[in-house]
Amino acid sequence: MTPLQDMLPLAGDLFDGLAGLSRDGVGITRDSYGAGETAAMQYLAEQAASHGLQSSFDAAGNMMIDLPGYGGGPAVWIGSHLDSVPQGGNFDGAAGVIAGLLCLIALRRKNLAPPRPVRVAALRGEESAWYGKAYMGSSALFGKLDEQDLALRRRDGKGTLADAFAALGADLDSIRAGKPLVNPADIAAYLELHIEQGPVMVARNLPTAVVTGIRGNIRHGHIQCLGEAGHSGAVPRWLRHDAVFAMAELINRLDDHWRILLERGLDLVITSGIVGTPPEEHAISRIPGRVGFSFEVRSQSSDTLEAFYHLMRTEADTIGRSRGVRFEFDRRIHSAPARMDDAIVRRLLDISGRQGLPVESLPSGAGHDAAIFANAGIPSGMIFVRNANGSHNPQEAMELADFIAGAGLLYDAVSTAA
Amino acid sequence: MTPLQDMLPLAGDLFDGLAGLSRDGVGITRDSYGAGETAAMQYLAEQAASHGLQSSFDAAGNMMIDLPGYGGGPAVWIGSHLDSVPQGGNFDGAAGVIAGLLCLIALRRKNLAPPRPVRVAALRGEESAWYGKAYMGSSALFGKLDEQDLALRRRDGKGTLADAFAALGADLDSIRAGKPLVNPADIAAYLELHIEQGPVMVARNLPTAVVTGIRGNIRHGHIQCLGEAGHSGAVPRWLRHDAVFAMAELINRLDDHWRILLERGLDLVITSGIVGTPPEEHAISRIPGRVGFSFEVRSQSSDTLEAFYHLMRTEADTIGRSRGVRFEFDRRIHSAPARMDDAIVRRLLDISGRQGLPVESLPSGAGHDAAIFANAGIPSGMIFVRNANGSHNPQEAMELADFIAGAGLLYDAVSTAA
Repeated sequence: MTPLQDMLPLAGDLFDGLAGLSRDGVGITRDSYGAGETAAMQYLAEQAASHGLQSSFDAAGNMMIDLPGYGGGPAVWIGSHLDSVPQGGNFDGAAGVIAGLLCLIALRRKNLAPPRPVRVAALRGEESAWYGKAYMGSSALFGKLDEQDLALRRRDGKGTLADAFAALGADLDSIRAGKPLVNPADIAAYLELHIEQGPVMVARNLPTAVVTGIRGNIRHGHIQCLGEAGHSGAVPRWLRHDAVFAMAELINRLDDHWRILLERGLDLVITSGIVGTPPEEHAISRIPGRVGFSFEVRSQSSDTLEAFYHLMRTEADTIGRSRGVRFEFDRRIHSAPARMDDAIVRRLLDISGRQGLPVESLPSGAGHDAAIFANAGIPSGMIFVRNANGSHNPQEAMELADFIAGAGLLYDAVSTAA
Repeated sequence: MTPLQDMLPLAGDLFDGLAGLSRDGVGITRDSYGAGETAAMQYLAEQAASHGLQSSFDAAGNMMIDLPGYGGGPAVWIGSHLDSVPQGGNFDGAAGVIAGLLCLIALRRKNLAPPRPVRVAALRGEESAWYGKAYMGSSALFGKLDEQDLALRRRDGKGTLADAFAALGADLDSIRAGKPLVNPADIAAYLELHIEQGPVMVARNLPTAVVTGIRGNIRHGHIQCLGEAGHSGAVPRWLRHDAVFAMAELINRLDDHWRILLERGLDLVITSGIVGTPPEEHAISRIPGRVGFSFEVRSQSSDTLEAFYHLMRTEADTIGRSRGVRFEFDRRIHSAPARMDDAIVRRLLDISGRQGLPVESLPSGAGHDAAIFANAGIPSGMIFVRNANGSHNPQEAMELADFIAGAGLLYDAVSTAA
């Protein structure tokens, strides 16, 4: 029984408060570096203050919540992000920040001095949906955004990432110079609670699980297939350069390769979440001269990522030659896979066992800010909470009881000595 | 040497005048039953008047141009349409109307009484790009528009086809009642000149050719594939219901069938000119839960059309079962194939030979208003004029010399007795 068990109603109020700020008519929208994300931060800062906690912002606009008198040696950070995809759910990201906040409130109520300082990081810009790049807030923290990142345009064309940083009053010079905003040595450990975004924990009846590692990915936000427009009735098959048929063949070939590679035991998922012919050219009777689409491959293995990416480019070249079309690729975006810290994984599994929770570990199919911390050399760990219907959609469904169980693991991890 | 040979500069002026009214910055846009089409009609009515010809509108807004004193028995109609696809070219449709107009001007200049009355029909709404249905103007003429057709919405959502008819002051009651606006017995023959929309005449070096028949088609403007959205990193392949991968498999299977059926000698083209995931759901990291696409199959054979359509539905069902997705089909739209009149084909070939033009016939891959006339029982014939780069795009390229040669065939056909 952790002190978190009493805090289920408070957790419900906090989630409801956040949802109330960010409903879009279909689901939840909290735009990265935009009004939705900022409103969520302000709300949680007010809630933190009402429980006697202190909030501040770092030079990249990430919000830190601390116990009064925070300081004195390397801290344990509990973090996650507050942004969402458009028409997403309320729990992806926010659950981790609220879990951290509840831990601080519980420590404050008990007036307990934890073995190490504890800080909650409410990070910005984790979702790639807005600028085509993920983990922007945590990347900024470690000086990992470059000029190309800062030039990325928002999905609706409203300015660049640099513009968004400037509007927040962030220290754009330091970010642009790649200067870390924090010394990794000042962070003893990074812990993140997150809803599971896949169907595994529901299927296996696990309220909580400990994450072993995080899949990396390689992406293109916008690949164009360029063929030749023509009258749909009048150009025979052998003279066609149909962009949509070429794209369909590419996707279908990649799907075949995927199936075969899974049979060989590789870890891999591939997705083209965005496809579209240009609306201004739409006619049923026009052979499509171009079509745009996104591509993403994810794997826990860097080798698998690179090999599949190479296969995709090779297939695109082959189809380009056979169909007389051309594939044009925008910037390749890469997120490295990350391993969670073995000692932290063992400790979280020990605590799970002591609390009567499943002693189960899982890989994370989705990427998380924890990967950025881990790849910056900070011992990191993650807790997954069971969640139905996946994430990035309004039907996300996390039970508050499962959430409280996961937050209880965090509480023990930060309130007791390792 | 026909009198049309002297009229090349006039033809150039008329095409330039039309283009000047309908440039959209990329190509030519003359919207069906919209401002662009109406402006083109007004311009040609003025030009006709300046050459002593008379214009009038039928009860569906189609424009008729006649010699003074028109009447006296069944007439030979020369027709085509004045609308274009969005960002299309200047010749698709307009060439046939201008060819007819030049014939009337030549008859008027020579003060020649043709063996039968000659009328030029400038038809509306041939392109399906605007309301998802083709041949609306000629269909209205024969009472072939029904309530479902009239309820079709314009591509930009601005009203229905019924609204557009009403705005023109058309006789919507007669159209709705399916009342023919003309007695087919009053039309002795229908002749249409049109640019070839495929690459065959350029490849075979034919300035003109005589059309034997017109491919029909079966279409869906909007098929939806409905799967299940999810996080792209977290849902393994076996639990996915990816709408885009399902659509790609369907298109790829149809492409395979198409190739095999061509090898068996069938006449067939298939196209999905419009594909797209819903922009409001776009995220690289979301498994697409739905995608929309158009489908069209064209053939000179009704049997081939129906058989391929059935194959498409069967494959969609199979993929739906294997991938756990669902295909939803909007209204099926059908245009019947049409045969040109054998006697007219022979006569146009005879005239071609006498004028030193190729004695060559071709099927029409694209549909034309002539199919509606032919299927209404009116003896019909078509002349194709060589044209590079296909149609339905701004790069249409017809040489005026080829056009004048084609118009000269029309002139002999209407000015001399059969």
